[in-house]
Amino acid sequence: MYQHQIQIRVRYAETDQMGYVYYGNYASYYEVGRVEAFRNLGFSYKKLEESGIMMPVLENYSKFINAAKYDDLLTITVSIPQMPTARITFNYDITNEAGALIHEGRTSLAFVNMSSGRPCRAPEKMLSLLQPYFNEE
Amino acid sequence: MYQHQIQIRVRYAETDQMGYVYYGNYASYYEVGRVEAFRNLGFSYKKLEESGIMMPVLENYSKFINAAKYDDLLTITVSIPQMPTARITFNYDITNEAGALIHEGRTSLAFVNMSSGRPCRAPEKMLSLLQPYFNEE
Amino acid sequence: MYQHQIQIRVRYAETDQMGYVYYGNYASYYEVGRVEAFRNLGFSYKKLEESGIMMPVLENYSKFINAAKYDDLLTITVSIPQMPTARITFNYDITNEAGALIHEGRTSLAFVNMSSGRPCRAPEKMLSLLQPYFNEE
Amino acid sequence: MYQHQIQIRVRYAETDQMGYVYYGNYASYYEVGRVEAFRNLGFSYKKLEESGIMMPVLENYSKFINAAKYDDLLTITVSIPQMPTARITFNYDITNEAGALIHEGRTSLAFVNMSSGRPCRAPEKMLSLLQPYFNEE
Repeated sequence: MYQHQIQIRVRYAETDQMGYVYYGNYASYYEVGRVEAFRNLGFSYKKLEESGIMMPVLENYSKFINAAKYDDLLTITVSIPQMPTARITFNYDITNEAGALIHEGRTSLAFVNMSSGRPCRAPEKMLSLLQPYFNEE
Repeated sequence: MYQHQIQIRVRYAETDQMGYVYYGNYASYYEVGRVEAFRNLGFSYKKLEESGIMMPVLENYSKFINAAKYDDLLTITVSIPQMPTARITFNYDITNEAGALIHEGRTSLAFVNMSSGRPCRAPEKMLSLLQPYFNEE
Repeated sequence: MYQHQIQIRVRYAETDQMGYVYYGNYASYYEVGRVEAFRNLGFSYKKLEESGIMMPVLENYSKFINAAKYDDLLTITVSIPQMPTARITFNYDITNEAGALIHEGRTSLAFVNMSSGRPCRAPEKMLSLLQPYFNEE
Repeated sequence: MYQHQIQIRVRYAETDQMGYVYYGNYASYYEVGRVEAFRNLGFSYKKLEESGIMMPVLENYSKFINAAKYDDLLTITVSIPQMPTARITFNYDITNEAGALIHEGRTSLAFVNMSSGRPCRAPEKMLSLLQPYFNEE
């Protein structure tokens, strides 16, 4: 398993009149988590797109345990539980400053060749950077 | 089962650089679907909040079958498959102008008393407006 | 002058914890106003982009007179006060259901040739559709 | 004058199909700039709201010089050019990683007493924290 943690400060723009983070805005927190998990590994999502491969989302699941609120400093733990194939899955746990788990999420994404529009395998570079985290003895 | 259909035109603001509707923006489409499904039934979500009950989201699931694109006129079919209790579930099917199913979603929400912060039962008015759609013979 | 009116229902997603429409979300209301003003004229912004011309924003000004709130049905009056050249300006007046003016805005956009990345003149079709509204006697 | 710099990484969610940051999303960059400028001064916007004062936006102006793109690391220089009275003005300059100025903005906000709904003076704590930056000899 590969795991990476980031912190995100809740913006006013992301709250709604309930005083909570609007439920649709967790998707962009997940996205920042995925991109920074890749960057920490030495892999740039931006360069992946420039090389002609994009990663559209196939499925997304979110469980709202407790509300995130304005100005909260959230910790997002991003995990890649399995080696990617033609798709990749990310899990997210979000904790608040008190350390309480307030949110869980999971996203599956495809690899798509932008010129053909067809699914493709995860790029070799991503696989070789992830491999060391999945070696079992 | 209670069912209602609405149409939503994709805004430029909702696209991303892939040229698709950003995956987090479906949540606001669902929200418009829920609120209009209630309004069509004779029930105002705004007035519900004014009466001291709010409906935070507990769980959300989204399946992205095909991309929605800029300026697409989407049809969202919103269903309430069961009578609400202390929670309510909505299902969504989204089709594009060609009639193809491009997206499926499901959201569960709680009823929460805003002064106590505690879960409560669905309001009587909502239950009596929904009841006729769930009468079995 | 060319003028067109549209109505927009405020989404929960667009509110913030002040209970108002977040100030950055008016930009997407303006955008819907511009696109529908064009559509009403017989001009499709989507097709303009497909033909290789895009319209990036150069300047934007917003004056917040009174708050728009959740579920408000807003009326947006969009005006094109002058014939476009290499740029076009839109004015917006937003009124609430009581007819009170709550917001004013103004956006200037360029016409840019997407292959060269360079500014260009407004397309002939747009000019000929707008011309009748600017004929002086 | 009081000045503070922050950095913001452009999220995928913030791009549009032009491949640029959507023009309405700069408002949330400004907001992060204002809040962090206050925090750096020793002042919490969150606590201000908890004390019963909110700061709705009165006017906003944005000039788009060059596009910000996905994954860009932007530097936002936030300035408060004058001591606040019953309103406060912020200026923003945004530069990209190459150091080029790509955007300028300006926002004026009011101070409003949340219980009365009426404008009020800037809080004493904010004034005393800002005063040292405006002392002329």
